[in-house]
Amino acid sequence: MVLTTSCPTQCVLRVTDQTNIYQNDLDQCPANYQALSPLSFLLRARDIYPHRVAVIHGERRITWAETYARSAQLSAALAGCGVRRGDTVAIMAANPPAMFEAHFGVPMAGAVLNAINTRLDAAMVRFILQHGEARVFLVDREFSDVAGEALKGLINPPLIVAIDDDLCETGELLGETEYEAFIDVAADDFCMTLPSDEWDAISLNYTSGTTGNPKGVVYHHRGAYLNAVSNALTWNMGEHPVYLWTLPMFHCNGWCFPWTLAVNAGTSVCLRQVRADKVFKAIAEHRVDHFCGAPVVLNTLLSASADLKALVKHPVKAMTAGAAPPAAIIGGIQALGMDVTHVYGLTETYGPVTLCAWQDDLWGTHDQQTQASLKARQGVRGQMLEGLMVADPQTLEPVPMDGKTMGEVCMRGNNVMKGYLKNPQATAEAFAGGWFRSGDLAVWHPDGYIQIKDRSKDIIISGGENISSIEVEDTLYAHPAILEAAVVARDDEKWGETPCAFVTLRPGQTLTEAQVIAYCQANLARFKAPKHVVFCELPKTSTGKVQKFVLRDKANNLQ
Amino acid sequence: MVLTTSCPTQCVLRVTDQTNIYQNDLDQCPANYQALSPLSFLLRARDIYPHRVAVIHGERRITWAETYARSAQLSAALAGCGVRRGDTVAIMAANPPAMFEAHFGVPMAGAVLNAINTRLDAAMVRFILQHGEARVFLVDREFSDVAGEALKGLINPPLIVAIDDDLCETGELLGETEYEAFIDVAADDFCMTLPSDEWDAISLNYTSGTTGNPKGVVYHHRGAYLNAVSNALTWNMGEHPVYLWTLPMFHCNGWCFPWTLAVNAGTSVCLRQVRADKVFKAIAEHRVDHFCGAPVVLNTLLSASADLKALVKHPVKAMTAGAAPPAAIIGGIQALGMDVTHVYGLTETYGPVTLCAWQDDLWGTHDQQTQASLKARQGVRGQMLEGLMVADPQTLEPVPMDGKTMGEVCMRGNNVMKGYLKNPQATAEAFAGGWFRSGDLAVWHPDGYIQIKDRSKDIIISGGENISSIEVEDTLYAHPAILEAAVVARDDEKWGETPCAFVTLRPGQTLTEAQVIAYCQANLARFKAPKHVVFCELPKTSTGKVQKFVLRDKANNLQ
Repeated sequence: MVLTTSCPTQCVLRVTDQTNIYQNDLDQCPANYQALSPLSFLLRARDIYPHRVAVIHGERRITWAETYARSAQLSAALAGCGVRRGDTVAIMAANPPAMFEAHFGVPMAGAVLNAINTRLDAAMVRFILQHGEARVFLVDREFSDVAGEALKGLINPPLIVAIDDDLCETGELLGETEYEAFIDVAADDFCMTLPSDEWDAISLNYTSGTTGNPKGVVYHHRGAYLNAVSNALTWNMGEHPVYLWTLPMFHCNGWCFPWTLAVNAGTSVCLRQVRADKVFKAIAEHRVDHFCGAPVVLNTLLSASADLKALVKHPVKAMTAGAAPPAAIIGGIQALGMDVTHVYGLTETYGPVTLCAWQDDLWGTHDQQTQASLKARQGVRGQMLEGLMVADPQTLEPVPMDGKTMGEVCMRGNNVMKGYLKNPQATAEAFAGGWFRSGDLAVWHPDGYIQIKDRSKDIIISGGENISSIEVEDTLYAHPAILEAAVVARDDEKWGETPCAFVTLRPGQTLTEAQVIAYCQANLARFKAPKHVVFCELPKTSTGKVQKFVLRDKANNLQ
Repeated sequence: MVLTTSCPTQCVLRVTDQTNIYQNDLDQCPANYQALSPLSFLLRARDIYPHRVAVIHGERRITWAETYARSAQLSAALAGCGVRRGDTVAIMAANPPAMFEAHFGVPMAGAVLNAINTRLDAAMVRFILQHGEARVFLVDREFSDVAGEALKGLINPPLIVAIDDDLCETGELLGETEYEAFIDVAADDFCMTLPSDEWDAISLNYTSGTTGNPKGVVYHHRGAYLNAVSNALTWNMGEHPVYLWTLPMFHCNGWCFPWTLAVNAGTSVCLRQVRADKVFKAIAEHRVDHFCGAPVVLNTLLSASADLKALVKHPVKAMTAGAAPPAAIIGGIQALGMDVTHVYGLTETYGPVTLCAWQDDLWGTHDQQTQASLKARQGVRGQMLEGLMVADPQTLEPVPMDGKTMGEVCMRGNNVMKGYLKNPQATAEAFAGGWFRSGDLAVWHPDGYIQIKDRSKDIIISGGENISSIEVEDTLYAHPAILEAAVVARDDEKWGETPCAFVTLRPGQTLTEAQVIAYCQANLARFKAPKHVVFCELPKTSTGKVQKFVLRDKANNLQ
């Protein structure tokens, strides 16, 4: 028997009208059917672990009983001011407790949580508020200026609730009421609402599209439930993890981790800013055992002083995704005594849905560098993703598992978004052929692991040859004097495009353009070496992704 | 705010027809919706861990790639002989690899697996085959005699496939074909079927009901998926557990563990008989780290020689359920270095759905006996059960959490059965009021943990198997010399409980205890026969009902 991969859909849905004995008198009823919703996990944490600490924020400790109570109060307050099923409630906040509570209180009211990227400018925030039709807008004082600017001239402005976080010292309070006063309502007889339909929307997350307006990705209760469980399973978190919020909760709802932490009744350690000293001190003080972050977060930790690094004295697990992490960063973090799990996903997939599942029986004896390279791959599907393939974008034929042929990463399953809000055309394009088209280009290795080579728009085509910007960046990262690097295409009359590198050196280091080019020529196929090198800080998005469109502009305007 | 428990349903389903922006153009499609089915986990284990051992049986090793291939072949063979969606495929087997494969191959064909209790007598097996309308019947040679007898006079007899297990030395092969020959079909182009509807039946498990004929409990793909995940989560199994089959797979589909082992790509160590020497040797040889069993299994291990016990040199986790395990047994097993998780469930709930979740911060400093007593409680709901309460059986009002007031254990959620096959009345009764009525009587402790005190249905649980007192009474009543009979549970160190019969003879008749026992052994499955018989008048209420609680006292005070 051949274990064929020629059937990428893995199934043929057999739909028949034939009736059988199992179709009679065995219907759904309240005893045997409940719409899946992550809110169920909050109820369970409240009932079983009411006394356990759910949230740590500075000196504050909030138990699971209190988190439930406060979320229920938020829900009651929202309902009290007219928020109904399917209404949007926006929030712009760092990671204070109110942000965590909003992940429960807003959907409890049947409403949809729209957590807005805090680094966007006012025009973008205005677009999002208008497009998402927010009825209520919770604003952390740190972001009052941008939010206030965004609200100017907004048609149907939302009710504003200011979040006055003790740990935030900047910004005026915006709007009519403060969060603590807003939720100070009786909820004694409040009975929280679980959705009657698990397909109901739970949240709305705008992608930072590189072209024009951002798209509103809609999540539903079913997917949020399943991806929350998937996080707990694939990362093997165990009960009562202590989780540090190095990831912004506005990013794909913190990869669904607010809900995961209810699954296993864990503790959230809030963090307003990712600074190495704060991270290491929090790890030591609260015995943090799990945190997530883009590679830039890991890099920040790697650059910390030896004193800070020495604070890690117990096992810590780090989950990373975003830009493909250079093997050098993975290796460095592992050397700190932290176990790195490399995952991959998109806003459209509720955050991470693949992981580089570690195969200790096969890889355990490899040297550290080989292990880090294996781990730098995006890997295989998590338990709750139903299908993952690398395929020809036109035909959807899977590419050979040869580690060479490039194709587009495609996914399908219950943790793929409902679609883009009020954008049926974009939704249809994203789902064409029955798969979600990620737009990421990858190869498929013989062991079934995928490895992303580039965003389809980031690939550099030079003299007809594809150059993966990631491959060049990996090489640059391996240089001891280089802190960060990004490579983009630069238009070229002769070659069509050539690679242009942007490099940040480590403090006190010096390198010349010629040295960098020579180094790359020595470590890469010659045509892949950059033709230009620029030394500068890299422009980044709020989530730590390098803004390649900015660099592309720069590259094409070099003197 | 009061965290009220006065709202036992925990939710009010808000069903509105109000439309909102999230209801347009965001529909289900193959990219973002897949019916939940545990078969997905098999595909994943095959794709990611093809080389890992899925099954150990004597000298045999079967990888996940092979388990998939063999299951697909079984599915193709079934389809080849006309098995269609919603057809029943029965199996009567100890725990050989074929039994494990049937949990995947049968539903792959869209069919429903009916694993039959191997200790039933021929009449009961005949009833089950007839009621479940089995199209195919897989019979382990050990059970050929009973199966052969059951088939006699059966209307529409099924196709028989014999399982010729190398590790079984008794019994003739029954029927037309042997399992290995049966599945020796090309499945190269076979593309397995995932259900189009997650509500489709996946298995059928007969309970020994209190009234005459057993009831056929129907499971669906959605519930099997969720309970399989629940096992992995609540037991915190991690990846690649090595699981010993001390639990019969016919028992609630082995509490859904065949599917759980696909979730985490574990290894099943098959075991035909629970004997202390075999269990301890398997634990040592294969580094087993997880096993399940009724308290009688734990008791068997406790009674083993010190040499055998000394074989446990690594951490092992034991999950137990069935009769409430005496604290002494829990304590004894913990002293062996095994961590006991006490769970509870019924055939109607896919096996275990509650667990005595350990609260180390609260209980960690208690003495061992107190800890064992705390652990002897049935506890709280697992992550995938939506509701659990102890309530007045008439009003469904939750009883106070005082550790004293008795009520009926009620559950609801997606891991509650579809219902009873071809028995709408029993289904309606079981689900009356929107909760599944377990028939078990319990108290609710102030910390929210439930503890079962009695069974309202007078079921006797002997060695993990249910014995209906009414079935035994029916047999006794059929004896010409017996006027009246009542059967109750008598506590037993080895079996948990054994049946004790109270018998009133007709005037002028004589019978000895040995004669009554022999008569029952001849007319019932042997394990259902009473171990003790008392001749007396039966104590009755004013309305003529036998006072079983009086008899239970007597039974437990016999000399």
